[in-house]
Amino acid sequence: MLINCVAYQDGQKLDDIPVEEISDYIQRPETFVWVALRDAKPDELAVMKEEFGLHELAVEDASRGHQRPKIEEYGDSLFVVVKTIECRDGEVAVGEVDIFVGQDYILSSRDGETQQGFLGVRARAEKEPHMLRLGPAFVLYALMDAVVDRYFPVLDMLETELEKIEELIFSRGKQRDNIERLYELKGKVTTVRHVVVPLMEAVGRLHGGRVPSMCQDTQEYFRDVHDHLHRISASLDTIRDTIATAIQVNLSMTAIEESEVNKRLAAWAAIFAICTAFAGVWGMNFKFMPELEWKYGYPFALTVMVSVCLYLYRRFKKAGWL
Amino acid sequence: MLINCVAYQDGQKLDDIPVEEISDYIQRPETFVWVALRDAKPDELAVMKEEFGLHELAVEDASRGHQRPKIEEYGDSLFVVVKTIECRDGEVAVGEVDIFVGQDYILSSRDGETQQGFLGVRARAEKEPHMLRLGPAFVLYALMDAVVDRYFPVLDMLETELEKIEELIFSRGKQRDNIERLYELKGKVTTVRHVVVPLMEAVGRLHGGRVPSMCQDTQEYFRDVHDHLHRISASLDTIRDTIATAIQVNLSMTAIEESEVNKRLAAWAAIFAICTAFAGVWGMNFKFMPELEWKYGYPFALTVMVSVCLYLYRRFKKAGWL
Amino acid sequence: MLINCVAYQDGQKLDDIPVEEISDYIQRPETFVWVALRDAKPDELAVMKEEFGLHELAVEDASRGHQRPKIEEYGDSLFVVVKTIECRDGEVAVGEVDIFVGQDYILSSRDGETQQGFLGVRARAEKEPHMLRLGPAFVLYALMDAVVDRYFPVLDMLETELEKIEELIFSRGKQRDNIERLYELKGKVTTVRHVVVPLMEAVGRLHGGRVPSMCQDTQEYFRDVHDHLHRISASLDTIRDTIATAIQVNLSMTAIEESEVNKRLAAWAAIFAICTAFAGVWGMNFKFMPELEWKYGYPFALTVMVSVCLYLYRRFKKAGWL
Amino acid sequence: MLINCVAYQDGQKLDDIPVEEISDYIQRPETFVWVALRDAKPDELAVMKEEFGLHELAVEDASRGHQRPKIEEYGDSLFVVVKTIECRDGEVAVGEVDIFVGQDYILSSRDGETQQGFLGVRARAEKEPHMLRLGPAFVLYALMDAVVDRYFPVLDMLETELEKIEELIFSRGKQRDNIERLYELKGKVTTVRHVVVPLMEAVGRLHGGRVPSMCQDTQEYFRDVHDHLHRISASLDTIRDTIATAIQVNLSMTAIEESEVNKRLAAWAAIFAICTAFAGVWGMNFKFMPELEWKYGYPFALTVMVSVCLYLYRRFKKAGWL
Amino acid sequence: MLINCVAYQDGQKLDDIPVEEISDYIQRPETFVWVALRDAKPDELAVMKEEFGLHELAVEDASRGHQRPKIEEYGDSLFVVVKTIECRDGEVAVGEVDIFVGQDYILSSRDGETQQGFLGVRARAEKEPHMLRLGPAFVLYALMDAVVDRYFPVLDMLETELEKIEELIFSRGKQRDNIERLYELKGKVTTVRHVVVPLMEAVGRLHGGRVPSMCQDTQEYFRDVHDHLHRISASLDTIRDTIATAIQVNLSMTAIEESEVNKRLAAWAAIFAICTAFAGVWGMNFKFMPELEWKYGYPFALTVMVSVCLYLYRRFKKAGWL
Repeated sequence: MLINCVAYQDGQKLDDIPVEEISDYIQRPETFVWVALRDAKPDELAVMKEEFGLHELAVEDASRGHQRPKIEEYGDSLFVVVKTIECRDGEVAVGEVDIFVGQDYILSSRDGETQQGFLGVRARAEKEPHMLRLGPAFVLYALMDAVVDRYFPVLDMLETELEKIEELIFSRGKQRDNIERLYELKGKVTTVRHVVVPLMEAVGRLHGGRVPSMCQDTQEYFRDVHDHLHRISASLDTIRDTIATAIQVNLSMTAIEESEVNKRLAAWAAIFAICTAFAGVWGMNFKFMPELEWKYGYPFALTVMVSVCLYLYRRFKKAGWL
Repeated sequence: MLINCVAYQDGQKLDDIPVEEISDYIQRPETFVWVALRDAKPDELAVMKEEFGLHELAVEDASRGHQRPKIEEYGDSLFVVVKTIECRDGEVAVGEVDIFVGQDYILSSRDGETQQGFLGVRARAEKEPHMLRLGPAFVLYALMDAVVDRYFPVLDMLETELEKIEELIFSRGKQRDNIERLYELKGKVTTVRHVVVPLMEAVGRLHGGRVPSMCQDTQEYFRDVHDHLHRISASLDTIRDTIATAIQVNLSMTAIEESEVNKRLAAWAAIFAICTAFAGVWGMNFKFMPELEWKYGYPFALTVMVSVCLYLYRRFKKAGWL
Repeated sequence: MLINCVAYQDGQKLDDIPVEEISDYIQRPETFVWVALRDAKPDELAVMKEEFGLHELAVEDASRGHQRPKIEEYGDSLFVVVKTIECRDGEVAVGEVDIFVGQDYILSSRDGETQQGFLGVRARAEKEPHMLRLGPAFVLYALMDAVVDRYFPVLDMLETELEKIEELIFSRGKQRDNIERLYELKGKVTTVRHVVVPLMEAVGRLHGGRVPSMCQDTQEYFRDVHDHLHRISASLDTIRDTIATAIQVNLSMTAIEESEVNKRLAAWAAIFAICTAFAGVWGMNFKFMPELEWKYGYPFALTVMVSVCLYLYRRFKKAGWL
Repeated sequence: MLINCVAYQDGQKLDDIPVEEISDYIQRPETFVWVALRDAKPDELAVMKEEFGLHELAVEDASRGHQRPKIEEYGDSLFVVVKTIECRDGEVAVGEVDIFVGQDYILSSRDGETQQGFLGVRARAEKEPHMLRLGPAFVLYALMDAVVDRYFPVLDMLETELEKIEELIFSRGKQRDNIERLYELKGKVTTVRHVVVPLMEAVGRLHGGRVPSMCQDTQEYFRDVHDHLHRISASLDTIRDTIATAIQVNLSMTAIEESEVNKRLAAWAAIFAICTAFAGVWGMNFKFMPELEWKYGYPFALTVMVSVCLYLYRRFKKAGWL
Repeated sequence: MLINCVAYQDGQKLDDIPVEEISDYIQRPETFVWVALRDAKPDELAVMKEEFGLHELAVEDASRGHQRPKIEEYGDSLFVVVKTIECRDGEVAVGEVDIFVGQDYILSSRDGETQQGFLGVRARAEKEPHMLRLGPAFVLYALMDAVVDRYFPVLDMLETELEKIEELIFSRGKQRDNIERLYELKGKVTTVRHVVVPLMEAVGRLHGGRVPSMCQDTQEYFRDVHDHLHRISASLDTIRDTIATAIQVNLSMTAIEESEVNKRLAAWAAIFAICTAFAGVWGMNFKFMPELEWKYGYPFALTVMVSVCLYLYRRFKKAGWL
C-alpha cells in the first residue's frame, strides 16, 4: 500500500507525485524522491523496481521478508533492513522495515507488524530543510534514528521486569515463579538482541573507515545511531549476564531453602521420635517397672517427655533449625 | 555414476555430450561444460581429472569424502565442498556435494546420503540464459543456493522440537523426559552447526575484499547465500543458547520439585508422627492414668488425635506444603 | 552553572574572562580557554555551542546525558564522555562528565551525581606551566587522569567486599547471606565495568596507530591513562571470575552441608528407631515372654537399649556422621 | 641414535652417506640430505648443528624437548615441532618430533615416546621422484601428513568412548561411573587439543598470505594438512562441548534419580507409618474400647490396616512414586 | 639500594663505575652501562632519571610500583615491567622488576618481594661476550629469560596441587576439602595468569611485525621468551579449565553421595519401620488374638520379624542401597 510519494528539491518539498512520474523526477538535479510503502505487495515492488532500477536480489529479499537486519551495497545504492520492536501486552513484537536508498531516492517499506508508522519522521525532516538538503542519506538516518529510538522503551520494559524478579529472588517459596519469569525474560532479551546486534554491526560500517560514498557527509549522524545501538547492546548484555547469574542464584536458593526445610523436618522428627521412644519404653510389659506403680507416675512421665521436647525445641531454635 | 554432461554456449544449452569430448568443448570460446555425478567412483573421478585437469589433492579429497565444508583455490579453479542436510524420521542425515569449478567447467558430485538431486537447479538455470551467461560461477551459486535453501526446513524442525520441549519445561514430573530430549536436540544442533558455520566462513570469502577472479561478477549472489547462512547460523546460536538455559532450568525445576515433594513428605510424616506419639502415650502401662478409666476416654482420645491431625493438615495446606 | 572560565596563554593563566569574550580569546595565538560547568542547563550549553562552535550532535548528547563513555571526533575537535564513580554508603554512584576539546578550548561539564569537582586539577595544572603549554589535550589528560584515579578506591571497596565474602564462604550456615552478597557485589562490578571498559577502548585510540592530531604530543600521557584503565579492568575481570566461582562454590557448600545434615538426621533417626523397635518388641502382648517376668527384666531392657544406642552413637561419631 | 642419512638429487636417492660428509653434499646443486634421528643425544645434535649450521636456540629447544607444537623461522630455515599421539591401553601417549628444514636439508628427530617411526614416509617419498624433486619442503609435508594422519585413530577412540558414555548417560545408577569417565575423557581431549590446536595455527602460516620462501611451491599441500587439522580440531570442540553438556546432564540425572528415590521412600514411609499409627491406636490402654472386645476384632483390625496399605500402595503406584 | 653499576664495551666488562660517571660512559661508542637496583628509593630513581634521561611517566610508574607487566616505548627507549613469582610455603608471592632500556644503558630495579636476585644473569652474560656485544637488548632478554624460567617451578607446583586434588576427587567424603582446595588453587592460578598473560602479549610485540629498533637483532631471542610464556599460559589455561570441570564434578559427587546416603537411610528406615509395625500389631490389646496365647508365640514373632528384616537387608544389599 502506498503511503506517500513526495519529491524534494534542495531540501524543500516539491509535491506529492504519482508513482509513474518518479523516474522523471529523479533525473532532475538536486532532487530526490521519498516513497513510503506499507505491506508492499509483489506488484507494487515490481513497479518500484522498474522506476528506481532496484537490484533483483534486494527486491526478492524485501518481498520475502524475515531478513536479518543488514545494510547491503548494490553498486551505488544501499539496501537496508531494520527491525522494529514494540511492546504489546508484555510481549515483544518484531516488525521489519526495508529501505532502498540511492543517490536520488529513498524507498521505505514496513510490514504489518510495525504498527507505528513514520509520518512523524517525514514531518520533522520537512521542517529542517538544511538537513534535508543532505539528501536520501539524511532521510535514511532519520528513519533509522526513529526506529532505534523505539528500542529504548522496550529496553526499559526488560530492565523493569528484571528488577521485579530481582526483588523476589531471595524471597522464600518464589523459586518456581522466578525461574519461569527468568526463562521468559531470557527469551525476550534474545529476541531483542537479534534485532539490535546485527544492525549495530551494519551501521558500524556507515562511519569511520571505508564508507559508501552516499553516506560520506552524514557519517557523524550514523555514528550517533551506532552509539545508541551500542548503548542498547551493552544494556542487553548486562541483562543477559544478570539473568544467567540469577538462574544460578535461583538454584542456590532452592538448595538453601530445601536445606532449611530439611533441618526443620529433622528437628521435628527428632522431637516426636524421642517422645515416641519414651512412650514406647513405658509401654513395655515388664512385670517389675516400679515407676508404673507410682501414684504420680503418669504426670511424671508426661513432665519428662514435655521437658525433653521443650529442651530440644529450644536447642533447635537456637541453632536456627526451627 | 554420470547423471548429466551438458555443454552450454552463451547461456544456451548446446547439447548433451559424451564424457570423452569434454576437453574439446571447454576450449571453445564462451562455452562451458556442466557435469553432474552421483556416488562418483575413483575411476570416474580419474577420467574427470584427465578431462578437466583437476588438482590431485582436490580429487583425493573428493574420492575420500567426509570433508569439512570448504572452498579451496587451486590456481584459477575452485574446489568446493558443501554438506547437505535432510530430515529423515526426525533424524538429521548429512550428505556431501563436491564441486569443481573452473573458467569453463563445473563438475558436481553428490554422495548417496544426499537423496534429493539437483535436476531442478539445472532446469531453472536453463530457463534463465541471461544468468547462465555469467558462466560456471553462476551455476556454483545456483547449486549452493539450492543446498542452503534445504537447510531451512531442518532449522524449522529443530525450532519446533525446542518449542515442544519448552512447553513442558515447567510441567511437573517431565524432567527426565525433557533432559533426554534436550540432550538429543543439542546433538542435532551441533551436527547442523558443523555443516553451516564452516560453509558460512568459506562463502564469506567469495564477496567483498579479495575474491577469486572467477566470482567477481557474481559477488552479490554469493553475498546473498552468505546472508542466508548467517541467518541460519544466528538461529542455531539462539537454539544452542536456549538449550543451555533450558538444561539449567531443568535442574532448577528438578530441585524445586524435589523440594516440594520433601515438604509434602515432611508434612505427612509430622501428622502421622504426632498420632503415633499420642497413641504411644495412652499405650503406656502406668497404673494411674485417669483418662484411661473414663467412659468416653477412647472417643475422646480419637477426637484429640483427629483434631490435631486436621489442624496440622490445614496449616500445612495453607503454607502450601500439601 | 558556570564554575570557571579562564584563558591561558603559553601555559600561563591570563585571566578569568566573561563567557561572552570567549570567542575573542580563542582566536589569539598560543591561547586557549578552559571552561568548567556543573549541571549545565540547555541555555548555558547553547551559549557555549555558539562561542566554541560545538557540533550539534555532541551538544545534544551532553544535554541529554546518560551516555556511554566515549571519545568522538567531530572534525578537528573531540567530544569526550567519561563517567565518575563514587562510593556512597557502600553503594556505587555513577556520574558523568562531558568534555568538549578543540585546538584552543576545553569545556568540561559534570552532572550532579559527580559530587567531587575538579578544582584540584586546575590548581595543579596551573602550577606546571611547561605542561599546560601542551594545550587543551594536556588538560583533557589531566581531567581523565583525575577521573580514573578516583576509580581505584571503588575498586578497593569491591575487592574488600569480595575478601569479606571469601572469609565466610566455607563457613557453615552462611550460604544464604553469601549468595545475597555475591549477587549484590556482582551487580556493582557490572556497573563499574560499564564505566571502565568503554572508556578503556576509547582511550586506546588516543595513543599508537592513528591518533587525533590534537593528541599527537600527549600520546604517552594517554597511554598512561589507558594503562591505568587496563589495570582496573583486569582487576574487575578477576573479581567477576572469582564471583562466578564463588557462586558455584556456594552451591557446592549448600549441597555439602545438606548432605551433612542428612547424615546427622539419618544417624539420630536410626538411634531412636532402634530404641522404639526394642520397646515395641517388649510391649507386645504375648502370653509367654519369659524376660518380662524377670525381676530385673526392666533394667536389663533399658541397659540393652542404651547400650545399642551408645554403640550406634559411637559408630556414627567415628564415621563422621554426628 | 642415527636412523638414516640419505642424499637425494633431483628427486632420486643418491646414497646413504656418512654424517661427516653431509656438509659436502648439501653444497651440490639440486641436492638435499634427509637425516632421521631418534632420541637424539646432545652430542649428536651438536654434530648436526655443525654440519647444517642450525640455530643455537632451535637446537637448545630440540635437546630440551617438551616444546609446544610450533613452526619457527630462523632466517631461511625452519624449526618445526610436532607432537605425535598414540593410543596405548586406552591412554593417550604424547611424543615429539623436532624437524629442522633448510634449502638443502631436512633433519627429523623423534623422541622415545613416539614408538611408530617414519620409514614408511621415506619409502613412499622415494617412489614419487616427481614430488621429491620439490625438495625438503615436500618431505616436511610428508612427515607432517604422516603425523597428522595418526591423529585420526586417536580421535576415533575419543569419539567411541564418548558414545559409550552417552549410551549410559540416562541409565539409572550409573552417575558415579559416568562422571568419572567423563572427567577422564575430558582430560584426554585436553591433551589432544594441546597437540592439535597450536600445530593448526602454525601450519596456517605455511599457506596463503606471507609464506616462508621455501614453502612457496608446496602451499597447497600444507593447506591440505591444515584442513585435516581443522577437521580434527572441530571434532575435538564437539567432543568438549558434548562432555560439558553431559556433565550437566549427569548432575540433572543424579538430582532426578534422587528425587525418584525420595518419592519412593516417602511412599513406603507413609504406608508403614499409617500401619504403625493404627496399631498404636489399638494398643492404647483405655478401659472402654468396644472393638477390642469383638470376637473378630483382631482380623477386622488387620483387614483395615492391610486395606489402607493396599489403597495407598495403589495410589502411589499410579502417581509413579513406587 | 644500588647493587651493581658496570660499563661494558664491545661485549667486555670495562669496570664497576660510580653512578655519577654513568652519563660519561654512555656517550662512548659501543659502550653501555648496566645498573641493578633493589628497592629503589625515589631519590635514587631521581639520580638515574638525570643520568639516563628517563621519561617522567616511566619513573613515576617505577616509583609507585604495582604495575601490570608491560613494555612501553618512550621514543627510542623502552620501559619494561615484569613480575616475578616465587613459591613461599605453598603461597605464590608476586614481586616486580622494572627495567629501563636505552641504546646504551639498561637499568633494572627489583622490589623487596623478589627475593632471588639476578647476579647469576650478569655472571652468565659476562661469560658470553659475543652475545653481550648485542647490547642492552640482549641483557633485557637475559633478564626476562631468567624471570620467565622462574615461572616454571610455580607452574609445576600448581600442577602438582591439581593432581593431588584429582586423586581425591572421586573419593567419598572429601567434597568439602576438595572444594576448598580447588577454590584456593583457582585463586593462585588467577594470580599467576595476571603475571604471565600481559607479559606474553607485551613480548609478542618484540618479534615479528613492527619491532622497536633496539630489538631488531634479538628478535629470535624474544620469540623464544614469548614461546616459553605461551607454553606456560597454555598450561595455566588447562589448569583453569580442569579446575572448572573439577568444581562441577565435585558438585555432582556431592549429589551422588547424598543420593547414596539417602538410599541407605531409606533402606534402614524401611527395615526398622517394618519391625516396629509388626511389634505394634502384636502390641494391640484385642481380646482375641490367638497367636498371643501360643506357647511359642513370642519366639515365632521374633523369628518372623528377624526373617523379614533379613530378607529386606539382602534385597537392599543386592540393589546396592546398603
